[in-house]
Amino acid sequence: MRHSQRGQVDPFIVMDVMQAAADAEAAGRRIIHMEVGQPGTAAPEGARAALARALSQPLGYTVALGLPRLRQGIAGLYRRWYGVELDPARVVVTSGSSGAFILAFSALFDAGDRVAMGFPGYPSYRQILRAMSLTPVGIPTRAEDRFQPRPGDLPQDAQGLILASPGNPSGTVLRRDELRTLAEGAQARGMALISDEIYHGLSYGEACHSALEVTDEVFVINSFSKYFSMTGWRVGWMVVPESHLRTVERLAQNMFICPPHASQVAALAALDCIAEAEANLAVYAENRRLMLEGLPKAGFTRIAPPEGAFYIYADVSGLTGDSVALAAQILEGAGVAVTPGVDFDPDRGARTLRFSYARSTAEIAEGLDRLAAFMAAR
Amino acid sequence: MRHSQRGQVDPFIVMDVMQAAADAEAAGRRIIHMEVGQPGTAAPEGARAALARALSQPLGYTVALGLPRLRQGIAGLYRRWYGVELDPARVVVTSGSSGAFILAFSALFDAGDRVAMGFPGYPSYRQILRAMSLTPVGIPTRAEDRFQPRPGDLPQDAQGLILASPGNPSGTVLRRDELRTLAEGAQARGMALISDEIYHGLSYGEACHSALEVTDEVFVINSFSKYFSMTGWRVGWMVVPESHLRTVERLAQNMFICPPHASQVAALAALDCIAEAEANLAVYAENRRLMLEGLPKAGFTRIAPPEGAFYIYADVSGLTGDSVALAAQILEGAGVAVTPGVDFDPDRGARTLRFSYARSTAEIAEGLDRLAAFMAAR
Repeated sequence: MRHSQRGQVDPFIVMDVMQAAADAEAAGRRIIHMEVGQPGTAAPEGARAALARALSQPLGYTVALGLPRLRQGIAGLYRRWYGVELDPARVVVTSGSSGAFILAFSALFDAGDRVAMGFPGYPSYRQILRAMSLTPVGIPTRAEDRFQPRPGDLPQDAQGLILASPGNPSGTVLRRDELRTLAEGAQARGMALISDEIYHGLSYGEACHSALEVTDEVFVINSFSKYFSMTGWRVGWMVVPESHLRTVERLAQNMFICPPHASQVAALAALDCIAEAEANLAVYAENRRLMLEGLPKAGFTRIAPPEGAFYIYADVSGLTGDSVALAAQILEGAGVAVTPGVDFDPDRGARTLRFSYARSTAEIAEGLDRLAAFMAAR
Repeated sequence: MRHSQRGQVDPFIVMDVMQAAADAEAAGRRIIHMEVGQPGTAAPEGARAALARALSQPLGYTVALGLPRLRQGIAGLYRRWYGVELDPARVVVTSGSSGAFILAFSALFDAGDRVAMGFPGYPSYRQILRAMSLTPVGIPTRAEDRFQPRPGDLPQDAQGLILASPGNPSGTVLRRDELRTLAEGAQARGMALISDEIYHGLSYGEACHSALEVTDEVFVINSFSKYFSMTGWRVGWMVVPESHLRTVERLAQNMFICPPHASQVAALAALDCIAEAEANLAVYAENRRLMLEGLPKAGFTRIAPPEGAFYIYADVSGLTGDSVALAAQILEGAGVAVTPGVDFDPDRGARTLRFSYARSTAEIAEGLDRLAAFMAAR
């Protein structure tokens, strides 16, 4: 049977690491997981309790844009987090942030259009774009810019720009004035702006700024996956300009029908579980402190400032030109799974690693000890 | 901000009907719902109980293709229902059948490709295709063919064919020899075959046949939404040829990460809730009997043989040339919401209506009484 060109997306290299880690565990070895991009914690207790109570109801289709009370609650977050008054009508509940990207790209871009993003960046941006017959355009960013693009870096011939703050894998955060000048640069070039804010709430210094603080001409994408610890629930959201609401609604009706109803019920309750989310954040903050102390001691000295999310991106060019091989050696020698940079930056990622600190503090501490011992013996 | 061409999909006309029905209900009127395409029943009790038990677990991401035990259980359905031995590795759990269509179209077709389907048919086929820069090609079917395409109807210049049995809105079922000749016709023309089997399990005469009984060169799409009464849970599946497994896996990793974990837990348990599913089926069978008795009495005499699903498609050309107006009159005059045919057949649907009998028998009986009284007074 026929194969499409658009379907030939790149494999995830990290999947090979995860498989090798799973094989080692199946063989009885204890592996420390610094490769995974998700919390080890469950959804907030209040979220699970709310769903348990709702299980006697039919939980059929919701309207395509999501439960009205959930949309209102999400709009309330923008007041709470950023002081932004947001019309709940502009909030679209989605099947994870993945569903939001599919809807945004469908509403904004036609086959052949070019969409720019900083490298290193979340690999699925470029794979989803390719699967939709769009062309990803990587902007190589610099360590001295905290791996975020400069306005002068934006291409002249692209139709869209994806920003990510906090970035994955970098963990770095765009300042408000940086967001503003990038948004202005995109607008001046006729690029539609998409701001990925999925790690908001997880920051360790200054609070994160939303692109909505500087412009309404933006698709803002977020999710319950990270701060609210609900990855597998597949419930995210998108804030869209009023001009695109009807288009996004029709696309959502046809492409998704609705986000999972049970997950929406849980998400609505999660909005009130701030204490639990903040307790998880305190764990990440302690993990981050240990990482910032332990990674340089182990020999990983060139790292991006980890201002948010739960990642640290390390330049290992002094150690290797083959990060995939180094990650395999670390897994084999230290029993620590880490992610080689090639998923995030096809060219320069051969000289970088991403460390995640999303799991328990005990695991992180043990992982750092193992890394130090392995690197000392190397 | 820019708008894409591909994002300009058609509105759902039925949404206007549903809104008008909701407005009437908000004004205190009791409306009988014969427009909705979903069961009024909840997910099976065993499914909800299994999820309740699982709520203490983290429920993070699953692997992209779905929980291995769920894939095995679905493969078992093919043995139980069709006597087909199916490698569970070929089963892909998806975010509803909607997710399956997005994955299938991405794996099979490139921008500009043409994909054929019978008209009348499920409207989202053509809207999802458009949103992915593909061109839907309608095949006008005939009442004497039970609104299913003939092999001789297949276009020569299309890259794909979607079959649906039982059809929506027609409720008609393809015989095994019809499936075979259509599959052969598609293969002879180089068309990739997609078989939508979402209403399987809901049939009232001969059992439904899967396209997998006649060929392995097919993408078969199904869901827990209908027979298992789990619409809002957004969990479906797709059986793919072995040649396309790696492609579909990579696309699923990037475009969806995974189907909702909680819904997968519920779906796995639903596979063992056959008694409850069959009890729902018995209700639809009784509803169908009432419809077949009551609709002709009310004046809807030209109907497609409703062999499966929970729909009856009626030719109302003797009554109107404007099915949207007629549906509005029926809602206003009888308090019964029905779907005008234009969503399913852009040209000829102005002379057809779809009646759904998915709700309780009491509702159906009352709806039929109202329709008879309204039509007698018309």
